[in-house]
Amino acid sequence: MNNIVRFGVSIDENLLSGFDGIIKEKGYVNRSEAIRDLIRDMLVSREISNPDAESIGTLTLVYSHDTRELVDKLNDIQHHYHKIIISTTHVHLDEHNCLEVLILRGRTKIVQMISDRLLAVKNVRHGKLTVTTTGKNLK
Amino acid sequence: MNNIVRFGVSIDENLLSGFDGIIKEKGYVNRSEAIRDLIRDMLVSREISNPDAESIGTLTLVYSHDTRELVDKLNDIQHHYHKIIISTTHVHLDEHNCLEVLILRGRTKIVQMISDRLLAVKNVRHGKLTVTTTGKNLK
Amino acid sequence: MNNIVRFGVSIDENLLSGFDGIIKEKGYVNRSEAIRDLIRDMLVSREISNPDAESIGTLTLVYSHDTRELVDKLNDIQHHYHKIIISTTHVHLDEHNCLEVLILRGRTKIVQMISDRLLAVKNVRHGKLTVTTTGKNLK
Amino acid sequence: MNNIVRFGVSIDENLLSGFDGIIKEKGYVNRSEAIRDLIRDMLVSREISNPDAESIGTLTLVYSHDTRELVDKLNDIQHHYHKIIISTTHVHLDEHNCLEVLILRGRTKIVQMISDRLLAVKNVRHGKLTVTTTGKNLK
Repeated sequence: MNNIVRFGVSIDENLLSGFDGIIKEKGYVNRSEAIRDLIRDMLVSREISNPDAESIGTLTLVYSHDTRELVDKLNDIQHHYHKIIISTTHVHLDEHNCLEVLILRGRTKIVQMISDRLLAVKNVRHGKLTVTTTGKNLK
Repeated sequence: MNNIVRFGVSIDENLLSGFDGIIKEKGYVNRSEAIRDLIRDMLVSREISNPDAESIGTLTLVYSHDTRELVDKLNDIQHHYHKIIISTTHVHLDEHNCLEVLILRGRTKIVQMISDRLLAVKNVRHGKLTVTTTGKNLK
Repeated sequence: MNNIVRFGVSIDENLLSGFDGIIKEKGYVNRSEAIRDLIRDMLVSREISNPDAESIGTLTLVYSHDTRELVDKLNDIQHHYHKIIISTTHVHLDEHNCLEVLILRGRTKIVQMISDRLLAVKNVRHGKLTVTTTGKNLK
Repeated sequence: MNNIVRFGVSIDENLLSGFDGIIKEKGYVNRSEAIRDLIRDMLVSREISNPDAESIGTLTLVYSHDTRELVDKLNDIQHHYHKIIISTTHVHLDEHNCLEVLILRGRTKIVQMISDRLLAVKNVRHGKLTVTTTGKNLK
């Protein structure tokens, strides 16, 4: 179990009142939790800027399943990198469009490379990769 | 079925050679597919800038399951918004850390609001929301 | 003159030690200043998401001065919007390339529109708009 | 002088019509110029991801001039790095707030480090660094 400590922040009262308004709107129960989130964001941003560090990637793909070829191609790539791709969730958006969300875990540059391969497949209409932390360095 | 048309692009040959290098690296099979992806990115960026348009959100959360209270709180919020939250995938990162990836569908401002609520829960260590398209307007 | 108040943050000591490391690296003299910057970033992000609010835009353009036509076109647009464009700084990057940094002040959507017009001019090789605050709401 | 070549893009006509709408809105005179800008953005994004490559940074600072100490501190840092900081433009935003836009040229990691130092100065209320290209690799 970790040790909880306390530190004080001196701040202009107008700035604090702006902060209180925004965190209330976002649903935070107290200032400490909001401050901890800001600090963790700062640490994660730096952590994931290192291409060799281990990270988690969430890749969101939108594609049309109209071509059998596309589905096969996506499957082939995913199986080839099965050690990195932890899971895939499939959602049927409408008659034509599919959404697939892949969770990847590995060195950031590998996660990026696999994401590039999948996004480059013909008829993948759109995609976005989000890189985040494995949580190891966040307490 | 859609109509495929063709248009020409005039370009400096050095710029084209830089483009060819980068798309080869990313795994594109031809220039047209890479250009279509650039165009779709441009359209999606505009589409999702409208808070009232329908979009897909992928929310990645990292948290510690050590507190029963946190898990209950996340469940409560997710059930309350079950019409917007399509699915949740859970990954056990290590003894302490959990990863949850939620897929949301609804007006962008609602997706953002639910995401804010979940991220504000105490002991959610990190999170990121990616907003993308339902694919309706992408051919 | 503003009133300075103080509030306490409770935090895991490991997380605090990560924070101390990163702020030392960035050159902060104390935690309060770093926390205030994180809070101000949060407020500015929200402020500039409103297209009708007044903001400051910094537009960086890279172009080649080889064509007289381009320089004329950029000048025309800048003069047309002289009420919004506060200043322009010009740097000679090499024999061919020029850098121009424009400071704009106006409603965010107007700043964005002028930026779009300038970036669309033929032979403007690259450009980026940064939107920030007029500082009025930051104490 | 460079050689201009031409290549063809095959595309769904609905996607092309979406593209035509957005580039008209942004003020492009033809599709080729818009495609070239998308390609250059792609090249610049990769170029500036290398911390050792030379880049241009535009740093926008908002601060209050009320404290003599702050102005001295900013000046000291800027003079110390005079070889990297090409120019500084100052704008008086209101009675209290100043805007300063610095243009820096050097290796991306040095540009980032100087920016961090300036942003960490007490009473610098907000700031943003944009990293772009020296244009050398863009034709």
